[in-house]
Amino acid sequence: MTNNSDQLEAIAQQLRVDSVRAAAAAGSGHPTSSMSAADLMAVLIGRHLHYDFDRPDHPGNDRFILSKGHASPLLYAAYKAAGALTDHELLTFREQGSRLEGHPTPRALPWVEVATGSLGQGLPVGVGMALSGKRLDRIPFRVWVLCGDSELAEGSVWEAAEHAGYEHLDNLTAVVDVNRLGQRGPTRHEWQLSAYADRFRAFGWHVVETDGHDVDAVDRACLEAGSTVGQPTVILARTVKGRGVASAENREGLHGKPLPDPEAAVEELGGMRDVRVEVRRPAAARTMHAVRSGHLELPRHALGEAVATRTAYGQALAALGTARGDVVALDGEVGDSTRTEYFAKEHPDRFFECYIAEQQLVAAAVGLAARGWVPYASTFAAFLTRAHDFVRMAAVSGADINLVGSHAGVAIGQDGPSQMGLEDLALFRAVHGSTVLYPCDAHQTGQLVASMAGLDGISYLRTSRGDAPVIYGPDERFPIGGSKVLRAGDTDRLTVVAAGVTVHEALTAAEALDREGIAVRVIDLYSVKPVDRRTLRDAAERTGCLMTVEDHREQGGLGDAVLDAFTDGRPVPRLVRLAVRTMPGSASPEEQLQAAGIDAESIAAAARLLVEEGMVR
Amino acid sequence: MTNNSDQLEAIAQQLRVDSVRAAAAAGSGHPTSSMSAADLMAVLIGRHLHYDFDRPDHPGNDRFILSKGHASPLLYAAYKAAGALTDHELLTFREQGSRLEGHPTPRALPWVEVATGSLGQGLPVGVGMALSGKRLDRIPFRVWVLCGDSELAEGSVWEAAEHAGYEHLDNLTAVVDVNRLGQRGPTRHEWQLSAYADRFRAFGWHVVETDGHDVDAVDRACLEAGSTVGQPTVILARTVKGRGVASAENREGLHGKPLPDPEAAVEELGGMRDVRVEVRRPAAARTMHAVRSGHLELPRHALGEAVATRTAYGQALAALGTARGDVVALDGEVGDSTRTEYFAKEHPDRFFECYIAEQQLVAAAVGLAARGWVPYASTFAAFLTRAHDFVRMAAVSGADINLVGSHAGVAIGQDGPSQMGLEDLALFRAVHGSTVLYPCDAHQTGQLVASMAGLDGISYLRTSRGDAPVIYGPDERFPIGGSKVLRAGDTDRLTVVAAGVTVHEALTAAEALDREGIAVRVIDLYSVKPVDRRTLRDAAERTGCLMTVEDHREQGGLGDAVLDAFTDGRPVPRLVRLAVRTMPGSASPEEQLQAAGIDAESIAAAARLLVEEGMVR
Repeated sequence: MTNNSDQLEAIAQQLRVDSVRAAAAAGSGHPTSSMSAADLMAVLIGRHLHYDFDRPDHPGNDRFILSKGHASPLLYAAYKAAGALTDHELLTFREQGSRLEGHPTPRALPWVEVATGSLGQGLPVGVGMALSGKRLDRIPFRVWVLCGDSELAEGSVWEAAEHAGYEHLDNLTAVVDVNRLGQRGPTRHEWQLSAYADRFRAFGWHVVETDGHDVDAVDRACLEAGSTVGQPTVILARTVKGRGVASAENREGLHGKPLPDPEAAVEELGGMRDVRVEVRRPAAARTMHAVRSGHLELPRHALGEAVATRTAYGQALAALGTARGDVVALDGEVGDSTRTEYFAKEHPDRFFECYIAEQQLVAAAVGLAARGWVPYASTFAAFLTRAHDFVRMAAVSGADINLVGSHAGVAIGQDGPSQMGLEDLALFRAVHGSTVLYPCDAHQTGQLVASMAGLDGISYLRTSRGDAPVIYGPDERFPIGGSKVLRAGDTDRLTVVAAGVTVHEALTAAEALDREGIAVRVIDLYSVKPVDRRTLRDAAERTGCLMTVEDHREQGGLGDAVLDAFTDGRPVPRLVRLAVRTMPGSASPEEQLQAAGIDAESIAAAARLLVEEGMVR
Repeated sequence: MTNNSDQLEAIAQQLRVDSVRAAAAAGSGHPTSSMSAADLMAVLIGRHLHYDFDRPDHPGNDRFILSKGHASPLLYAAYKAAGALTDHELLTFREQGSRLEGHPTPRALPWVEVATGSLGQGLPVGVGMALSGKRLDRIPFRVWVLCGDSELAEGSVWEAAEHAGYEHLDNLTAVVDVNRLGQRGPTRHEWQLSAYADRFRAFGWHVVETDGHDVDAVDRACLEAGSTVGQPTVILARTVKGRGVASAENREGLHGKPLPDPEAAVEELGGMRDVRVEVRRPAAARTMHAVRSGHLELPRHALGEAVATRTAYGQALAALGTARGDVVALDGEVGDSTRTEYFAKEHPDRFFECYIAEQQLVAAAVGLAARGWVPYASTFAAFLTRAHDFVRMAAVSGADINLVGSHAGVAIGQDGPSQMGLEDLALFRAVHGSTVLYPCDAHQTGQLVASMAGLDGISYLRTSRGDAPVIYGPDERFPIGGSKVLRAGDTDRLTVVAAGVTVHEALTAAEALDREGIAVRVIDLYSVKPVDRRTLRDAAERTGCLMTVEDHREQGGLGDAVLDAFTDGRPVPRLVRLAVRTMPGSASPEEQLQAAGIDAESIAAAARLLVEEGMVR
């Protein structure tokens, strides 16, 4: 075995020294949180991690996630010890343009699996990776997640603990750096390891308690984790924050700050070293998974047939799963509602039931995506708000995931506001680099579901509960960033911009208005982000006024989205916005649309008013 | 003791009958989920709940939360049994205009404490109420929360379990209706009560397992809960979904649907009954809390003094706590960063440390607000996204809570994107009835913090990490829905609309442009929602073009907010939007603002371009 105890201790001291130096160079950062975990990290990279730094895409590589992302100096120091970074680069920590950001992200560093820095996310994502290894890749890599103790207060950690325990993920090890001190003072349980042990054990985990500064003890704990069958393992390591520098050890008020006297600290730690760690190589493994890619056969419907877009989603996803072997689906225990049950039935091996735990649902998707799978994760649109922070961090990670929210808007009817997705477009539009889609019929839905598989970043599809008539032919194409002009004429006095359920209302309104001599253009803005600037600008020029109609709050949705076509200083058309302005109660879908003022009659009434008041041409 | 076993059983059957009837009348709803918990509910209202239905505001009333909100027929049937509802009203279930919504909300029913229907929220909010009883009101009411088994997969339940266990909330009892079946099939642990028992016990709870259909056993369990000291109690009740109707019992595929033959079901359940439950009265109790209201002395600063708005928030909150006895503060273990530590130091009895558990942070605030307190809950703006669903549901509840997010935007500097609030304005603007505030200096912050205490609904304040010069005098007033015109002249060719950190950048840019002969108006839009329509419209008329500059994503924030002044069909000014369009890395605050294109130089450059291209007057 490489790296004996003395060597590991030397490596650990070097990790501390380099953490202190990096933070000192940056003038900010978290050296004390790095120092507590240095022995853990030394043992992991020196003895247990199987990783080829020259081939970060090696399918047999273990996965390491620094869930306590603020301890990034430790991670970068470890990369240096492994020969992946130079000392020069280490000292660029937190500088503009440096790969070594305050919290690690994978955009520039190929060895970072996923962005961390929002606590309680590393373990949930690690579960997704371990699921991939166990159930899909069938490669015996291990997933190691280094957690802080503070973050165990996050419910998402227990969603992950539940998921991993239930799925018997013995390829997953959580190492908890129990250094007793959070940001502003002691944690709830301080050094009471038994509190955490009881919790993890209750969730079905194997637990090892250890002294986190005894490299031999930590090594034994890791060996025990590796030999535990049928259960994930948590190593609870008692450590001292600031370990190695007496004036910093176990002291409050030093969180997130460079040490006051870094030179003295380096000296106390034994001075500069240049130990290189020999990291174990992964075993030979086949490529992650063969991407079988066949012909996609989407369902075809007759024009006018009544099909809910959620149903069309489920059908398309099942078909996509048949055509592509890399598509996986996840659901939050509502697959009968979201219709992922169609996929689950046809491809049970690639379906992941996450139960009612939306943070874990999205995190597992991120973990699966990091292993090369193309995940579609679904629940009610309303409940995806539960995972907002995970979506935000997935965007920082640059993860390619597809999220599908059903039961959009007041149109769901009797169930009332708790079940209505009314803020989801705002949430997903604000996510960096996202794509936001909102289909109105079955064929459109199918095409968009297929397109999502090839998109980068966070893609969101909004589906509806109720049936809607098929209005497009089966061979119609719906490019991302496009729209459909459903009615247009030379005498249009107004453009109604709709999406999803309001497309049908807009068409009905336009027919009624036409009979009254008021010509109205209708645009189906199925691509809410990016929007079809050209079509919107053209409609603005020709009709002078855009009326947006959406089954969503008036902020952040369709009404705001159309503005994306006009914020470069060009003339802006007149704008009228119909959206959900009240807190709905229970009522039938039709009553709901009427009460919210977004049904055909409301659209027609608003158009008539504009004509009467001379506000349109 | 009133209500003997036979009577309780008769009440339970009546609750089942009425649940079946209500769902049948509505044509939707969840009778089977109601039937499993009917015996639990009968024992609770018949023997243990102390409640005066004529005086829902009685300070001594116990609190009951139906966390499994879809079982609303059971709740309404219980209200009927207690004489609070007529049978006629019961049968209006889920009709438009009925008080009996698909999922209970407090807006029309005075006995509903908080809206439920998004699972995993009842227990977290109940913890807030129990904290109020224990630490603030000091009234011996009990909080009873009826949970489903499926929702125990939500991490928020374990955040609540942790919080309640740690705070020794022996006035809190969770009753879990373990009916084995979730929406789409069996739960993870089905009838394995020990799985849940182990988990709750590990989190410091007293656990009682019982047969949920044996009223005497349930009664004994409730008595045991009541006599347990120093620990919250969970009653794990083994039940059968659809209990009482053989064809529905323990059957998959019946979730959320009326029974196929309701008349036969009612007959099988023993037919219609009209049993009235005598509910125990609460003990006499003083009013909830005396609201001491004194003179508010906000800190005063010199013009030009450098003060971070987060610091001004902490100072103002501490001062507000001195002036008003009903103000309470909560934090997510970052009080040294958000500056709630100032409040904690001066008012430790009214400060609640929630550790790193943002869902619980917001839920506890909702629970405290329901008891009449005025909560301010703080963490990093980025991490409030974690509680999005709780904020959404708090709006459905009509809760009056104040949320404060610090470390807004790229201006935080080196820590990088995981710590930057860049989507928070979009989140909070889309919340129904919300107020969104974003101050730029210390005096403005102080005034807004004070105003928030009197606002209805969800109020959000966004604070910044870095120091900013004081630009307003200490006696300046900042009405909600207002703005400040900081520069204006007759020859203004453009209006720059800014808030927070960009106000200072806009002022610098305007001075530079002025020297070049380009007169620019500057508006400080500190009230992002509602916006100051009049001032924006006036600026639009006079200058023709609005340029918004925000340290936030370009979707859903300031740029979209100004549009709220122009969506009624009136002419819209030209619009230019400067916002954060990239994924930031690490860099100094100044570098970040420059890289995002929202610093003074970027504003000036954009203005020059508009002038050169003839796009402004």
